[in-house]
Parts: sequence; C-alpha cells; structure tokens
Amino acid sequence: MQSNEKKVPDVVVKRLPRYYRYLRELLNQDIKRISSNALSKMMKVTASQIRQDFNFFGGFGQQGYGYNVEYLLNEIGDILGLNDGETMIIVGAGNLGRALANHNSFAKRGFTLVGIFDNDNRIVGSTINGIRVMSDSEIENYIKENNVDIAILTLPHAAAHEMAQRLAKGGIKGILNFSYSELDLPDDIPIENVHLSDMLMTLSYRVKNQSKTENEE
Amino acid sequence: MQSNEKKVPDVVVKRLPRYYRYLRELLNQDIKRISSNALSKMMKVTASQIRQDFNFFGGFGQQGYGYNVEYLLNEIGDILGLNDGETMIIVGAGNLGRALANHNSFAKRGFTLVGIFDNDNRIVGSTINGIRVMSDSEIENYIKENNVDIAILTLPHAAAHEMAQRLAKGGIKGILNFSYSELDLPDDIPIENVHLSDMLMTLSYRVKNQSKTENEE
Repeated sequence: MQSNEKKVPDVVVKRLPRYYRYLRELLNQDIKRISSNALSKMMKVTASQIRQDFNFFGGFGQQGYGYNVEYLLNEIGDILGLNDGETMIIVGAGNLGRALANHNSFAKRGFTLVGIFDNDNRIVGSTINGIRVMSDSEIENYIKENNVDIAILTLPHAAAHEMAQRLAKGGIKGILNFSYSELDLPDDIPIENVHLSDMLMTLSYRVKNQSKTENEE
Repeated sequence: MQSNEKKVPDVVVKRLPRYYRYLRELLNQDIKRISSNALSKMMKVTASQIRQDFNFFGGFGQQGYGYNVEYLLNEIGDILGLNDGETMIIVGAGNLGRALANHNSFAKRGFTLVGIFDNDNRIVGSTINGIRVMSDSEIENYIKENNVDIAILTLPHAAAHEMAQRLAKGGIKGILNFSYSELDLPDDIPIENVHLSDMLMTLSYRVKNQSKTENEE
C-alpha cells in the first residue's frame, strides 16, 4: 500500500488537509460525487494538479465518473491518520494554551485532548474545557503511561527547548510547536512549527509590496 | 530599488521572517558579523540558498567579510515592512482573539494593536491587555478613520465571510485569517491563512509515516 510508494513531497502533504476540508464541506452539503474539474474550480488549483497529488496515493477512483466524495474523504482522512484516534496534550496553560484547549476543531478532526500541563501551582488542579491541568513535573511518565501521540507546545522561548527534550524522553511522537524557538530534536520526532509572528511578517511583506504594485500601475 | 526587481517567489518571502528571527537572536548575543557559512550552519540551509535568497534584494554586503548583522537585520526588517509602524485590529474577542491580544511578540516586531472588535454586548466596553473591546457595528468606519493596516480575523466559519467583506469595504490592507474559511476577496487584499487544524493534520501525517518508516527498516 502507501508505505511502499515513493516519498510524498512536503508540498503535497501540506495540501492534503485542504482537500480534506473541502471534501468534508461537500459531504455536509450532501454532495456524493464530484469531477476533478469541479473540485479544481472550487479549490482554485488545476485539475491536473489534483490528479498528480492523488496519484501519490494510488489515484482514488475513475476520472470519467468523478470522485466518490465520501470514499475520498475517508481515504484522505486515513492517510492523514485521522481515523487512528490520536491523543494529544497541551504543554503550557497560558492564554494561547487555554485558547487551543477550547479550540473544538481539533476534536472534530479526531484528535482527543487528554491532558494539559503547566508549572504554575496556582492553576494546577483547575480544569480547562473539562480537562484537568497537571503539574509538568510528571510529564515524561504521563506520556509513557498513556502513550500520548502529540504535544502542543506553547511555552515561551526560554523554557521550550528543555521541555522539548523531556517530551522526547517521554516518547512523544510529534510536536505542534507554538513557541518562538526552533526545537533541536532527533529527526524521528516530526515538529510542525506555528510561528505566528512569522506569518504576520509574511503578510506585512505582501501588504507592503501590494501597495507598491498599485502605485506603479 | 526593490520595487523594480522581479517578483520574489513565495517560498523566499516565507523564509524572510526566519532570517529576521535568527539575525535578531545574533544581535541579542552581541554578534556583529556573520559569514554566510556560519549562518548556513545555524539555520540548516545551504550557504548558496542564503546567497540566492538575498540576491532577490540586492545581496546585502560582501561575502568575504560576511554580513553585518545589524545592517542585514534592518534591511530585512525594512523589506518586511516592520519599520513602517503598521497598525492592526483583532476581530473576534473569543479565546483565540484574547490570546492573540496578549501575544506580545507582535508588538516586538513593530505591529501595534489599536482595537479589538466583537458583537457580544457583554464584553464590548471591557479591556483586554489594555485595549478596549468595541462593537463591530462600527468596524468599517473605524478602519477608514484610523487607516488600519491589518485585521486578525478569529471569527467562526459562519461569520467570517461576511466580516471579511466588511473589512475590505473599510479599506483593510491585509488579513491574518484564523477562521476556518478561505476568504473570497479581491486579489489586492493579501490574506495569510492560519488553519490550525490543517497544521495538526500535517503533523499527524508525518507522525504516522514516521512510524511506518521505522517499522520497515
């Protein structure tokens, strides 16, 4: 199956969640079948791009008849590991950690938040969205005993690096990193960086160069 | 100057904030000069990649002597529009909006939060991180009168599209979009999407395929 195929390029992997999102929307609208041309128009990518992307995973169904939406959604969900019941913890119960604990779209995608950790004794023992905040002194054991898949790391720069080492020691399988550090971990622990300031700076560049273009024309 | 040069590819633009981040860190450590080789090692990209990237903006200084850190930081900051004193508003004072209002790294990059908007009368008039929450019924006028540059949109899917139209009408210059919608706006308003669930799904894919690789070897 998939595991025998060539490595899927990062850009293709990053497009999969977008396909998933659009297909889910179609299914919610009770649309059962869609041609690659219609999908192409809706998603503003070429039909050939879609076919190329899907070919990395064996193609998914006959072109002449279009794609079966539910089947395709399930296949892509499966490829993304959404049907595996992955568990996650949030490390850092500050403003961002709290907001993410209340971010219900994670649960909708099949990820279960099982614990929240912090080092502040004033909030340890309280609950956020029904989940108890635990002291992070127990975090390595917790990950091991509960076989936690993913950690969402929201600690500040100074504390992030040491915590990442501890998460790795506990056996974490992947980190969604909101801290403003790039973590230095073994390559077999995937890290997805969410550098919010970087995104704001990229937007700022595009705003600045957009207005330049306008002035020149 | 820059405006006369060819269009900079998106991948290069997206790397600029990362350069900015590393250079700022160097300056904080009082390092005044760095060779492209040393920068390359630190950032884990090839020196030739760095030179290629910088060549889009005229190169920045002599290779033999390395780069002047402060000069390079200022140049890249300037390219990113960080020295322009951009203003921003947050639309939606829910958990995520509140967390972002308290996210101090935005201010450190030169972005000033000038207003927070919500449609919930129970929180309109309260303050978050010293900024007053205003009713979003006045939002178009507020943007016009205050010449607001950027909106951070944290509304849910159902409300995001209509609000984006109103922001555009008010004259917003760019949107950092945390809502789970892709906004349909004129091309001259740049949008940077932060789809948190997509990032979690991408990580999930990499975790799943990481463990597959391990099992096969």
